[in-house]
Amino acid sequence: MGSGKYEKLTEISVIGYVREKLDFFPLNARLSAKEIGDGNLNFVYRVKDEEGGKSVIVKQSDEFARSTPEYHLTKDRSRIETEILEYQAGLVPEHVPQVFLYDEIMCCCIMEDLVQYRILRSELTLHKIYPDFAEQMAKFLSVMLICTSDAVMDSEEKKKLVKKFINPELCRISEDLVFTDPYTNAGGTNDVFPPMRMFVEEEIYGDKLLHTEVSKLYMEFKTNTQSLLHGDLHSGSVFINEDNIKIFDPEFAFYGPAGYDVGNVIGNLLLSWGAAVYVMEDGSEKEQFLSWIKETVEKLVIRFMEESRRLIIESSRDPLCNTPDFAFWYVEKIVQESAGFAGLEIIRRIVGEAHVKDVTGIEDPQKRIQAEKMLLRMGKILIGQRGEFICGKRFAQLMEGICRSDTD
Amino acid sequence: MGSGKYEKLTEISVIGYVREKLDFFPLNARLSAKEIGDGNLNFVYRVKDEEGGKSVIVKQSDEFARSTPEYHLTKDRSRIETEILEYQAGLVPEHVPQVFLYDEIMCCCIMEDLVQYRILRSELTLHKIYPDFAEQMAKFLSVMLICTSDAVMDSEEKKKLVKKFINPELCRISEDLVFTDPYTNAGGTNDVFPPMRMFVEEEIYGDKLLHTEVSKLYMEFKTNTQSLLHGDLHSGSVFINEDNIKIFDPEFAFYGPAGYDVGNVIGNLLLSWGAAVYVMEDGSEKEQFLSWIKETVEKLVIRFMEESRRLIIESSRDPLCNTPDFAFWYVEKIVQESAGFAGLEIIRRIVGEAHVKDVTGIEDPQKRIQAEKMLLRMGKILIGQRGEFICGKRFAQLMEGICRSDTD
Repeated sequence: MGSGKYEKLTEISVIGYVREKLDFFPLNARLSAKEIGDGNLNFVYRVKDEEGGKSVIVKQSDEFARSTPEYHLTKDRSRIETEILEYQAGLVPEHVPQVFLYDEIMCCCIMEDLVQYRILRSELTLHKIYPDFAEQMAKFLSVMLICTSDAVMDSEEKKKLVKKFINPELCRISEDLVFTDPYTNAGGTNDVFPPMRMFVEEEIYGDKLLHTEVSKLYMEFKTNTQSLLHGDLHSGSVFINEDNIKIFDPEFAFYGPAGYDVGNVIGNLLLSWGAAVYVMEDGSEKEQFLSWIKETVEKLVIRFMEESRRLIIESSRDPLCNTPDFAFWYVEKIVQESAGFAGLEIIRRIVGEAHVKDVTGIEDPQKRIQAEKMLLRMGKILIGQRGEFICGKRFAQLMEGICRSDTD
Repeated sequence: MGSGKYEKLTEISVIGYVREKLDFFPLNARLSAKEIGDGNLNFVYRVKDEEGGKSVIVKQSDEFARSTPEYHLTKDRSRIETEILEYQAGLVPEHVPQVFLYDEIMCCCIMEDLVQYRILRSELTLHKIYPDFAEQMAKFLSVMLICTSDAVMDSEEKKKLVKKFINPELCRISEDLVFTDPYTNAGGTNDVFPPMRMFVEEEIYGDKLLHTEVSKLYMEFKTNTQSLLHGDLHSGSVFINEDNIKIFDPEFAFYGPAGYDVGNVIGNLLLSWGAAVYVMEDGSEKEQFLSWIKETVEKLVIRFMEESRRLIIESSRDPLCNTPDFAFWYVEKIVQESAGFAGLEIIRRIVGEAHVKDVTGIEDPQKRIQAEKMLLRMGKILIGQRGEFICGKRFAQLMEGICRSDTD
């Protein structure tokens, strides 16, 4: 381990590694380690003091994606992940895990173990309600996306960040899995629920107008270096508890369109909502959960827009940018694109390779079919009519309307 | 010189430098050297064999802009210039000067001396006509802008080029001189022809709607990594003769919106046209020159659109991009933005710091006022109504219309 060479950690060697690198545990502590990663790209160990109870997370990247060995990746992504966590810590320290150490040779990051938090996606599948989520997420998104953009940042400083966070390999994964494969099945990697095949062939593979709209968002994703994105902000990248959220796993970080992060948050809320419409039994619990998600989406958009405009007008020193007219146009455009990217996220999570348990967890095949059809329709509206999505209300109307048309 | 240290060349030392570095001249040649640079950023020497007649150009960059010492620049721009010349040589070798040697330490590039060519701007002020210019420039622009874009290039290769050509310092100059200063006079660097002051204050500084439209193009310039641009494609960056054009001085190169290069070409043609409307005496020579420019702008746009669409459909291997629908949308958007950037170029050349001799060369103050007013009106239409500019014909109509309304 001290040999200055990369070495794949194990549940055994990671204990010695942490002892050697970090003055965190008492010398006589009895440490245990467990691989707890459920992602696709890395190995994640929790190293814990069995008596004292303290623990840390060790995240190591390998040269191959775990389930997709055709993506050969350099280990540069751990550098990017660590650097963005450190950058985020300067802007929104309350919403990111603390990094204790980054080891360039071992491609390892040792960081805070967020034991007081749960994964948002799991909580959503249990239909838990978090009243403050919209406000917290709107704040995280507005600060991260606006304060790293040309609307506020110094031009030369921003270009240096663009260069530092150019992330060709991880962007390629998103380009394939989000933008091209779900519509063309080009990679042959799509994973369509068998009873949905004909629907997907007609409504997704066969809809050429949809493809043209997708291609516009695809170019936006590839060329618009607007903001420093998390890049993979689905509900499995969010830790939550009653008091706070923490955003983790930012290895897909790059300078891209701000609406991509906002759209991923919205898309994952809608996936959870669409599943709940069919999987929950009628009653007050269902009503409350569905209302909460609808209000959360609406409020997230409203508060994101308010905060983003305020940040631009108050923080920009550029005479062309610190005006209400500019701020209004700039933020409205982000929200329109967020709608498009939300639609892409919904469709790729149903048609593409990487599913979400909100939907795959629906046991009754008839209900799953109904949920998937409704969500795909919703995704298409979000993409095709994204120009209409200029306020929180429009998202709420979509949810109300699609629910009515589906149950009629 | 062989000491491995940067040293500013002189008309004397450059001769020894070329002899040492390049096996180009006969050993016994009698060489002379002359500084011929008229740009703002570099020193340019022609080193010539007085008897044999052969010559080369030596371009050296210094840490300060020549006329604008407040722009402190690293000498990295000579690396960028050399690398883009070499990259262009792979795509359009017939349209760029040949690089013989790049010396990283001395920040020097030794290149082909294009003695058979003249500077396009000078030729335009003499009202010379070049019937093949539109076709040649359309080819240069479509190949360079489309083949370096995500519409055609491999995603990871393209991102590596974006990184290589990030050019914060030179982009900052454009951001100031093209986008902000002319509208806000923020840097105090504007240079308004005195009798035009009130017009400029009302029509340019005072027009807040114009400022909002400019800010949209400004964001496009700062964030859209669409194509590898020349970045400063005015008519002083084009060498021309009866047979060919050569494009030089690409030190402002960076990944930006394709419309910026196209717009700069159009804007400079319009500047020349607008000056000629007032400075030339009525008669067939004037008619021919004005018609040629109008036809050149129209044809440039038409041929650029045709070639760009063809390149996308024939060369793209991306299933979302190699369709006529995508190609049509993609190229139309470039042309709309070209109109906006052409308008910006016109306005900044009249209001901002860097003027063009097409306009400043108008000796009669009344005629110069008329030309400047017409050109500023034209610039505002190009920016504010850029969405209408989706074909070559629309540019020709603008020229016809503005001429009529101005002489009425």
